[in-house]
Amino acid sequence: MVEVKASIDGVKGFQVAGVHAGLKKDDALDFAIIRSSRPCVTAGVFTTNTVKAAPVLYNMERLRTNPSQIRAVAINTVSANACTGQQGMDNSRQMASLTATQLECETHEVLVMSTGVIGMQLPMDKIASGTAIAARLMADDWEATADAIRTTDTRPKMAQVTLLSPHGQYTIAGISKGSGMIAPNMATTLGVIVTDAKLTLEQANQTLKSAMDASFNKIVVDGDTSTNDMVVLMANGFSGVTLDASFDVAQFQEALTAVAIKLAQDVVRDGEGVTKFITLHITGAANDEIADKIAHTIASSPLVKTAFFGKDANWGRMVAAAGRSGVPFDPDKAQLWMSSGEELFEGDKGLLLFANGTYADYPESAAAEIMEEDSIYISLDCGDGEGESVVWTCDLSHDYVSINGDYRT
Amino acid sequence: MVEVKASIDGVKGFQVAGVHAGLKKDDALDFAIIRSSRPCVTAGVFTTNTVKAAPVLYNMERLRTNPSQIRAVAINTVSANACTGQQGMDNSRQMASLTATQLECETHEVLVMSTGVIGMQLPMDKIASGTAIAARLMADDWEATADAIRTTDTRPKMAQVTLLSPHGQYTIAGISKGSGMIAPNMATTLGVIVTDAKLTLEQANQTLKSAMDASFNKIVVDGDTSTNDMVVLMANGFSGVTLDASFDVAQFQEALTAVAIKLAQDVVRDGEGVTKFITLHITGAANDEIADKIAHTIASSPLVKTAFFGKDANWGRMVAAAGRSGVPFDPDKAQLWMSSGEELFEGDKGLLLFANGTYADYPESAAAEIMEEDSIYISLDCGDGEGESVVWTCDLSHDYVSINGDYRT
Repeated sequence: MVEVKASIDGVKGFQVAGVHAGLKKDDALDFAIIRSSRPCVTAGVFTTNTVKAAPVLYNMERLRTNPSQIRAVAINTVSANACTGQQGMDNSRQMASLTATQLECETHEVLVMSTGVIGMQLPMDKIASGTAIAARLMADDWEATADAIRTTDTRPKMAQVTLLSPHGQYTIAGISKGSGMIAPNMATTLGVIVTDAKLTLEQANQTLKSAMDASFNKIVVDGDTSTNDMVVLMANGFSGVTLDASFDVAQFQEALTAVAIKLAQDVVRDGEGVTKFITLHITGAANDEIADKIAHTIASSPLVKTAFFGKDANWGRMVAAAGRSGVPFDPDKAQLWMSSGEELFEGDKGLLLFANGTYADYPESAAAEIMEEDSIYISLDCGDGEGESVVWTCDLSHDYVSINGDYRT
Repeated sequence: MVEVKASIDGVKGFQVAGVHAGLKKDDALDFAIIRSSRPCVTAGVFTTNTVKAAPVLYNMERLRTNPSQIRAVAINTVSANACTGQQGMDNSRQMASLTATQLECETHEVLVMSTGVIGMQLPMDKIASGTAIAARLMADDWEATADAIRTTDTRPKMAQVTLLSPHGQYTIAGISKGSGMIAPNMATTLGVIVTDAKLTLEQANQTLKSAMDASFNKIVVDGDTSTNDMVVLMANGFSGVTLDASFDVAQFQEALTAVAIKLAQDVVRDGEGVTKFITLHITGAANDEIADKIAHTIASSPLVKTAFFGKDANWGRMVAAAGRSGVPFDPDKAQLWMSSGEELFEGDKGLLLFANGTYADYPESAAAEIMEEDSIYISLDCGDGEGESVVWTCDLSHDYVSINGDYRT
């Protein structure tokens, strides 16, 4: 079991800064740079939305042509630089160029990320100011850096793992932001994970994809997929540790996945208006894809989410959502349990709510007691095979409506 | 243009009743019967949810074996008779049998519908009482009948069209219920449409399917699909009017579709917590299916819906939803307009919000003015072909959360 810390001490060869560039009001931090002393092998995963923000398109091109020479990523909030046309593309390139000038590297060695309102052009004077201020402060204040990439997030999100391999010690650390799969008018989940291990490009790409499939692709706040979602993994090799054996790769993968899960779960925990953290564990589906489709459909259902907000153990809505998920699901074979917490205690699935196609004659008082908890674990066995999926989600509350119903101001 | 009345005078050969059978508290109407003096050619459309309520399964079997001999449909509220196992199936059959006994017809001539809480068995003593009371009151009180099938609906939903064909005059009338695609713990949209025209079974099936594709399949309240959705069309031929020519069928189809659209739109207008009625008109997609997918994705987006509740002309969220709909959509070719009302006035699409991949530099005051209206018309031209779809939807408000977050009591 990998132990994940919720703070970051530092990662060899990486310097960071989070500063106030004048994008947000007051003195709130709103601009960040993460830099490596050496060029990084870098992998990225990007939103599947066909409407891709300029920084997403810009980084995709960089990682296609130059994935082993990345030295920095600059991140701004307030404007997502999405739906901004050619000027948006020019601005992303300009943001990379300004950062490169300050860091004394090449433009093509810099990635850029933006998060905030869709359709608003980047205020380039403030971006320029941010690069200049941040470049002077590059050090190891990861908390300020994680703070500076927030939009409606209520707190910074950090994770770190340090590993001892046969080749020496190395560290994986990451930050993320996001408070809805889309935040209010905002666009949305960003993540930067860095390591001082020395990875090949293939190792970086494969381990990042695998980690994402088990973390960021397993969370649902509101079911909307942003125009700006992206997560990058930067490996600078500073520790000198290489992953030569399959054992090394497996160890790295386990730790990377643990870091990614921590960062992804933090996005759900800090989701807009969230009062409950819900783990949906689907088993016994015909295959993993079917289990995942059922889990995502339940997690996205407004009726399921409002029931959790209302502390109503409404298994009927969960079963009905499974039934409309578009994949095989036979209610007569299914069983649904509910328990408190984020993990099962000794495999105990808790209270059986639904079996044999109907309700399981449980005491309502026991269900009501579990529903008072902040974290709830739902186990749904489809009785149809070996397919399995775990998805983390949350309730849908009045605060979600308030946050997202507000005017853009 | 077909004129649709929002009340029902009566349809030849049909008698109805809506009564209090003791299912709801106080004296609220909760049980209805619609009967025809003659056997009806009957078509039905049923939920695509794989979790189908007992009355859905029961009626599917009746219409498979006996579609030209249906004489009545009995409808109860409070219990949806969904996820109720073998006892639920037995109870649906028993409900048909009790109704047949009271109406002095055969059990296989009776359809049954249920709407209400999932997982609760039908209280058969009250169902028996309802059939006895209703059978004594059979007349033409369609308003009481429409009233008696409500759950969280705030008002009864009725529509009627009377047509003069070359063969004589005939009437199409219908009632529906539903206040969410799923109402709170409830299951959900029901519709009964009757006509005294004389239809062949093929005419009934084809015209009903076509009407549903343009009405009930084009509404979204919350994106959840119920376990109990069904609509039936009963034709008793009492007017003596047959549909011999393709002209007759086209005329009937137009009127039937108009009735179905009225009933479906009423479900959205009376949706849970709804403050705005929104028409989404997608044009210029590669084909109609793609247009429809884009329309349904926008209509189901919690972020789009909360923005409408907040009177925020948030085109960014609509474009982002189109982009994640899983079908081809190129924001650089698309244009998005907004207007007030439920139809375009002389084809004027109103205020252009989005074009050339970015915002269209419109006056915010003009957008704010439209956003004050109760009905809003969104036109999205994808610039990609001739595909088109219209979907009717609503906002997502605090009241939706309150209604659906309440305990089952």
